[in-house]
Amino acid sequence: MVQILNPGSISAGAPAPTRTSRKSEARRLEILRAAARVFRRRGVAAAGMREIAEEADLSPGNLYYYFRGKDELLYFCQDRTLEQMHTAVEAARATAAPAAEQLRAILAAHLQCTLDELEGATAHLEVEALPDKLRRQIVEKRDGYERAVRALVTKGVKRREFAPCDPALVTRAMLGAVNWTARWYRPDGSQSVEEIARALPDYLVRGLVPTARSRPKQAKSC
Amino acid sequence: MVQILNPGSISAGAPAPTRTSRKSEARRLEILRAAARVFRRRGVAAAGMREIAEEADLSPGNLYYYFRGKDELLYFCQDRTLEQMHTAVEAARATAAPAAEQLRAILAAHLQCTLDELEGATAHLEVEALPDKLRRQIVEKRDGYERAVRALVTKGVKRREFAPCDPALVTRAMLGAVNWTARWYRPDGSQSVEEIARALPDYLVRGLVPTARSRPKQAKSC
Repeated sequence: MVQILNPGSISAGAPAPTRTSRKSEARRLEILRAAARVFRRRGVAAAGMREIAEEADLSPGNLYYYFRGKDELLYFCQDRTLEQMHTAVEAARATAAPAAEQLRAILAAHLQCTLDELEGATAHLEVEALPDKLRRQIVEKRDGYERAVRALVTKGVKRREFAPCDPALVTRAMLGAVNWTARWYRPDGSQSVEEIARALPDYLVRGLVPTARSRPKQAKSC
Repeated sequence: MVQILNPGSISAGAPAPTRTSRKSEARRLEILRAAARVFRRRGVAAAGMREIAEEADLSPGNLYYYFRGKDELLYFCQDRTLEQMHTAVEAARATAAPAAEQLRAILAAHLQCTLDELEGATAHLEVEALPDKLRRQIVEKRDGYERAVRALVTKGVKRREFAPCDPALVTRAMLGAVNWTARWYRPDGSQSVEEIARALPDYLVRGLVPTARSRPKQAKSC
C-alpha cells in the first residue's frame, strides 16, 4: 500500500475508504505516473513541479495540494515500485512452488516494474537524489526486498533445488542484471517487455540449477 | 593502446618510443589514476581540474600541459578501461580454450577493471558526462566490446558448448550483472575483488551450460 502523508488523502489505519478518499487516491496515482514520465524524460535533477503539474493536467497549486514537492513525488514513485516488488515476493511465496519457479516469477515482476512505460521505473534507481530521511526509508525497503530474494536462493540451496553458491553474490548478480535493463531497453527495440521478462529470468535461474561440472565437455559430442 | 592527442606525448604510428616519451606516457597514466580517484570521490560533475592537479601533485598549469581539460581526462579514463577489456577479449581468444573458459576469463577481467581501486573504474560508466564527439567514440568502443562477447556466446551455442539462448540478451545480462557491482562493492566489504572475480563469472557462465530441463526435480532426491 502506498504510504500517505498528505491532506486530502486516506489516513494510515483508517476505516474503509470513502468514495471521496478513493477518488483522491486515484488522482494521486495519476500524478505519480505523470511525475515518473517527467523524471524519465528530463532526469530527476532537471524535472520541475511546474512541468509535472502540466503533465498531470493540474495547476501547480493543485499539485501542491497532493504532494509537498519533488522529493515527495520521487519518494512515492520509488516506494510504489518497491511495494510492487515486495508484493511479487509474497505472491511467489504463497504458491509454495519450487524455488526456481518462485524466483523466475519474482525476477519477471521486477523486470515489469523496471521497464513498465507507464510507471517510468528508472525513478526507483535514483535514490541518491532523495534527501537523507526519505532515502533511508527507500534504501531500507530495497534492502528488505534484496534480503527476501536472498532468503529464497538460500532455501533453494538447502533443499538442493539449487547448486551450492554464495546466495548474497548471486542475488546481487541477478538483481544487477535486471536493474541494468533500464540502461539498454528501448520501447521501440526488437524485444517486448514480456519477452525479456521470460527469457532473462530463465537464464538467471539456470545458473543456479545443479549440473555436473564436466557437462560442457560432454555436450560437445551431442 | 591509449590514444594520444596531446603535446608532449607519443604520436600514433611513431617509431619506438624514446626515453622522454616513455616518461611522459608514465606521467599521463599517473594523472589518469589521480583523476579517476577524484571522479569517484566527488562524482564527475563536481570534480575540478584544480583538485585533480592537487591529487596528481602537479600545478594546474602543468596538468593542462598533459590534458586539455576534464572532458579529455574522463575520456581517457574510460578509453583506458575499455582498452583493457578489449585486450582481455583478445587474450581469451588467443587461448582457443572452450567458450566457457574464455568467457569466465573475460568477465573476470571486466570485474577487475570495474572494481580496481587504482583505476577508479566507475568513471567508465558515466558516458553521459562526455561531450557528443567523445561520447560517440566511447560508446562505439563499448559496443565493439559487447559485440565481441556476444560473438563468443554465439560461437559457444553453435558448438553446443552452451545451451540454445538469445546471445544478445544473455550478453547484456552478464555485462549488467558485472557493471552493477560498481553500485554495491565496498573495498572494506566481506569479499575481495579476486573472490568476486572468481565466483560471479562462474555463476554467470553456469547459466549457459546445457542441462536437462528436468534436472532441478531430480536433484531433490540427491
